[in-house]
Amino acid sequence: MPAAPEPALPGFDDVLDAAARIAAHARVTPVVRSQRLDALAGAELHFKSEHQQRSGAFKFRGACNAVQALDPATAARGVVTHSSGNHGAALALAAKLRGIACHVVVPEGANPAKLEAIRLHGAILHRCAPGIPAREAACAAVQRDTGAALVHPYADAKVIAGQGTAALELFAECGELDLLVVPVGGGGLASGSALSLAARAPRCALLLAEPTDADDTLRSLRDGKRRANARVPATICDGLRGDLGAPDFAMLQAADAEVVAIDDESTLAAIRALWADPRLRVEPSSAIALAAVLALPERVRGRRVGIILSGGNVDPDALPTLLGGSMPRVS
Amino acid sequence: MPAAPEPALPGFDDVLDAAARIAAHARVTPVVRSQRLDALAGAELHFKSEHQQRSGAFKFRGACNAVQALDPATAARGVVTHSSGNHGAALALAAKLRGIACHVVVPEGANPAKLEAIRLHGAILHRCAPGIPAREAACAAVQRDTGAALVHPYADAKVIAGQGTAALELFAECGELDLLVVPVGGGGLASGSALSLAARAPRCALLLAEPTDADDTLRSLRDGKRRANARVPATICDGLRGDLGAPDFAMLQAADAEVVAIDDESTLAAIRALWADPRLRVEPSSAIALAAVLALPERVRGRRVGIILSGGNVDPDALPTLLGGSMPRVS
Repeated sequence: MPAAPEPALPGFDDVLDAAARIAAHARVTPVVRSQRLDALAGAELHFKSEHQQRSGAFKFRGACNAVQALDPATAARGVVTHSSGNHGAALALAAKLRGIACHVVVPEGANPAKLEAIRLHGAILHRCAPGIPAREAACAAVQRDTGAALVHPYADAKVIAGQGTAALELFAECGELDLLVVPVGGGGLASGSALSLAARAPRCALLLAEPTDADDTLRSLRDGKRRANARVPATICDGLRGDLGAPDFAMLQAADAEVVAIDDESTLAAIRALWADPRLRVEPSSAIALAAVLALPERVRGRRVGIILSGGNVDPDALPTLLGGSMPRVS
Repeated sequence: MPAAPEPALPGFDDVLDAAARIAAHARVTPVVRSQRLDALAGAELHFKSEHQQRSGAFKFRGACNAVQALDPATAARGVVTHSSGNHGAALALAAKLRGIACHVVVPEGANPAKLEAIRLHGAILHRCAPGIPAREAACAAVQRDTGAALVHPYADAKVIAGQGTAALELFAECGELDLLVVPVGGGGLASGSALSLAARAPRCALLLAEPTDADDTLRSLRDGKRRANARVPATICDGLRGDLGAPDFAMLQAADAEVVAIDDESTLAAIRALWADPRLRVEPSSAIALAAVLALPERVRGRRVGIILSGGNVDPDALPTLLGGSMPRVS
């Protein structure tokens, strides 16, 4: 992404506005309970099932809020992003629902299956060379040529506010919880969740789950300074490889969020435990949140724990690896 | 199973009674829509998501109805069956919810993961040699020793009536459809669905999907005489290998049901199309219903089609085969 302008940080009112704005388009996803997984964790787990959200991930909430909030003249020029993952598909769908153009810059070599979902929603694909500089340049060129508005995947106040609606729904359904566990990549879901938590469940702790090899959020919050991941992180959590955004960092610092780093082995074990249940077949970047719960048995024992399962889109080629070994039968 | 006594055939009133009886225990499962799959089929598809039912399959409806309908003295002696698949787990859960004993006869060599789900719900496992005669003998022995009531997986009026509640909910949510597609094995779901269809959607056609290698229902309805599968059917649809039950046959004959035989290759293609959506990761015995729709493009074009996705429990060892090849990204 081009270095995003520093947006005004969103507040809880913006989450409420987002909830109203996306209500006609987004799904209120179910909160799933599982006796088997409660027994495994020694805690009462409430799984907010964003893999059942439109486009298969929470990303639709933020993208839809950003698109619906555009004034008509701006909207008429369309929107642009350069995420080829869940945000790209979500923005394409959000733009289609408003009837405006969506441009998605994708690097050569991007997964054809992912591009198919973006194309399905009628977005215009722009190819560029791999690597962040080429992507940013291509994105800037599309903005210049078309006047399209950039919708950044996480460093955007409207996007963050939209992502906060998932936790808003979770607290509305479950009341105050003792602990809310959220995966963190760029930080949109985490910082949006922090807004809803502060307003609706002030005694609930916020725990962020991050891959060991992409632990920039842990280091950023520890050092009080935004840190980057040194290289392309090697983790199966493909949605959590990005660096924490600037507004997201400021908000998570203010929220006193705690971060736990989780290795891929633990995430794989969580995937297998989740996939035994037909309701919980989620992507690695979601399963990491259950892995965090299982890594902290003393912390969670007997507690009421909310877990945001952020999405369900899985690279089909990766499935044999993800699901290798034996899974218990569903309960 | 021991040759079941010929039960009085259930009617639609029995489905309504079942709905009331199981309401406090079973889930009203969601009806899922997918633009991508509508486009693939050229029809408007309504997926009744029984893989999100308790125990991961519609089987809980019938088992729960049968268990809840027992008079207290009979219930106190417990229930017995010898299905090690979805019915076994469903009956174990239904018995646990009523606080009564459940005995499940399982053959040596049964899938340990399947047994784990049955054990999880506190059922008592009884081992026997493989093969139907040994299973029936062991089941009869448990009945003699304990006085437990047999709950047959499909040749049972209460079970059939319970299974009919899935289609009842589907018609309540979607109104009359043009076509209802249901997988058929022993026939409990199919014949229960026929009752709800006749009462709630009399102009809707009933199409049953059956594996080519286990096409006893097709031959039975064609010949007007109950036919058996000649041997252990070789199909990935492990829930559909059984022979059509006697009451099920009579009811499907009366309902003028139509059957289409589907080869495993077509079911595999349907599995891959479904698994691209995190909401639709179902077992082969469910995916066959979508395969039937895709096999009859002229028949379904432009129609409103209900599809009962019967369950989501998958043998983990089979997943690499089931999901081999590439899946499109979710929409």
